[in-house]
Amino acid sequence: MDIQFLGTGAGMPAKTRNVTSIALRLLEERGAVWLFDCGEATQHQILHTTIKPRKIEKIFITHMHGDHIYGLPGLLGSRSFQAGEEKLEIYGPKGIAEYIESSLRLSRTYVNYPINIHEIEEGLIFEDSQFTVEAKLLEHGIPSYGYRIREKDTAGPLLVDDLQSIGVKPGPLYKKLKEGETVILEDGRILNGRDFLGPEKQGKIVTILGDTRICRKSEELAADADVLVHEATFGVADEALAYEYYHSTTSQAAKIAVRANVKKLILTHISARYQGNEADILLKEARDLFENTFVAADFSQYSI
Amino acid sequence: MDIQFLGTGAGMPAKTRNVTSIALRLLEERGAVWLFDCGEATQHQILHTTIKPRKIEKIFITHMHGDHIYGLPGLLGSRSFQAGEEKLEIYGPKGIAEYIESSLRLSRTYVNYPINIHEIEEGLIFEDSQFTVEAKLLEHGIPSYGYRIREKDTAGPLLVDDLQSIGVKPGPLYKKLKEGETVILEDGRILNGRDFLGPEKQGKIVTILGDTRICRKSEELAADADVLVHEATFGVADEALAYEYYHSTTSQAAKIAVRANVKKLILTHISARYQGNEADILLKEARDLFENTFVAADFSQYSI
Ligand SMILES: [Zn+2]
Ligand SMILES: [Zn+2]
Repeated sequence: MDIQFLGTGAGMPAKTRNVTSIALRLLEERGAVWLFDCGEATQHQILHTTIKPRKIEKIFITHMHGDHIYGLPGLLGSRSFQAGEEKLEIYGPKGIAEYIESSLRLSRTYVNYPINIHEIEEGLIFEDSQFTVEAKLLEHGIPSYGYRIREKDTAGPLLVDDLQSIGVKPGPLYKKLKEGETVILEDGRILNGRDFLGPEKQGKIVTILGDTRICRKSEELAADADVLVHEATFGVADEALAYEYYHSTTSQAAKIAVRANVKKLILTHISARYQGNEADILLKEARDLFENTFVAADFSQYSI
Repeated sequence: MDIQFLGTGAGMPAKTRNVTSIALRLLEERGAVWLFDCGEATQHQILHTTIKPRKIEKIFITHMHGDHIYGLPGLLGSRSFQAGEEKLEIYGPKGIAEYIESSLRLSRTYVNYPINIHEIEEGLIFEDSQFTVEAKLLEHGIPSYGYRIREKDTAGPLLVDDLQSIGVKPGPLYKKLKEGETVILEDGRILNGRDFLGPEKQGKIVTILGDTRICRKSEELAADADVLVHEATFGVADEALAYEYYHSTTSQAAKIAVRANVKKLILTHISARYQGNEADILLKEARDLFENTFVAADFSQYSI
């Protein structure tokens, strides 16, 4: 599992940072990429990565501001020009369906794959055998969601050596034991599968937040996460501006990381006012409170 | 007057060619830039030019396909972050108003300048003391306009030497003569201003066409133009494809240039199938019929 930043700027594109989009690369886990937000020119950024648009299985929109959605119609259209007709699921706030519908209709864009649009509310918005995704509303003036992506724990491996040492040979029984069932051997012995499984593999937790002021819900979504992606539109000196515009500072993001006990904090949505090595100052401000912090750049990638 | 190409590709962005946008730079003439089409990431391309978004006075949309309009909401939003509240006029086919209205409304984008949207039909769509713009429908499956931008001729300079040689001294009379009026001198002589004006300065004609098959209306719009911008999505070998998809080939564009007696032909909207020096082949195909042809690249600029 990797996370790759396609755009790390705030509000408007700049030469060095495009507007927001983040790819959660689940290629090993499910041969798919999940996108979080899709600012203008996200499809252009993707051209410079190894991501194939048709591998994008889900798109989660945090909020309806233009710098988070204006790349959606173009990406949906271009995805249609590739082989394959894999379904696409889109999750986002109320309004996202009308935005997509009107943009595609007015531009006469007919895609060759099904699109399911889910206008979400707080709570569990997706679950399958591998993952759950939970959403909560943050504080941004307009509805802005944070997402907690949780990979399910997977059962440990069957302890084959232990079974053979007590004389249980490989066969159909092994399958039942691996699933944790209780079986009765021909000699009358009763074995509980759970006694023959190695330790569970713990699933990863990734928390990706939309634009927000520092708030309690961020902390809840990020609890014990392996990675927290938090906006840091401003540096510490501009805390008043951050509050006024419903954004966060570096150190506010770090506070959430500390309180939520996350393993790694990645800052994004950096205002264009911070150029070149000013990003180092932002990084230092956050690291003063939470050591394992990084400031994302466009195209930077972190394994999880 | 200059024309600068911001995107010269077809359908989808590629690494070397962005989707369509063309800037007619009228900085000397009126301190303004007119944009023709606004594909996704046009505002990103503009970052790499000297164009200031607030200098964009008018945007003409040729047709509603996504590769010609998806950059509009982002550009309108970003234009608002600059000083100045200059009005913006947008011209385009039916549907353009709903597209802009819904994109801005759903993304909560409030611009700080007035936007007038004109859903046009064929005919004269703009006229002031300097320019006229005429639109005609081309052949593209959906309504696609071509635009003929005509700079008005300007009166020649007053021939001051001639006037002084017949004893007419500088004074308020000169202004009337310069405007071509007839005046009576104190000594009773009658002078017609038109006899004392140098040759008129002929205004330029620029024709910028939307996506189209080869068609008669293109020829009409381009008659005697200084510059004709014509799409050439395909090379000669793919004439059947060009017809099927309502596009043109290099040599069809050149035929229009010949028939319309233009001075210069610039080809754009080049399919991504033509990479690197294949553009040279496209150029040669057109030049075989019309010598003064150029194939535009992103950011290439021509003075008119
Ligand atoms: Zn934002
Ligand atoms: Zn096109």
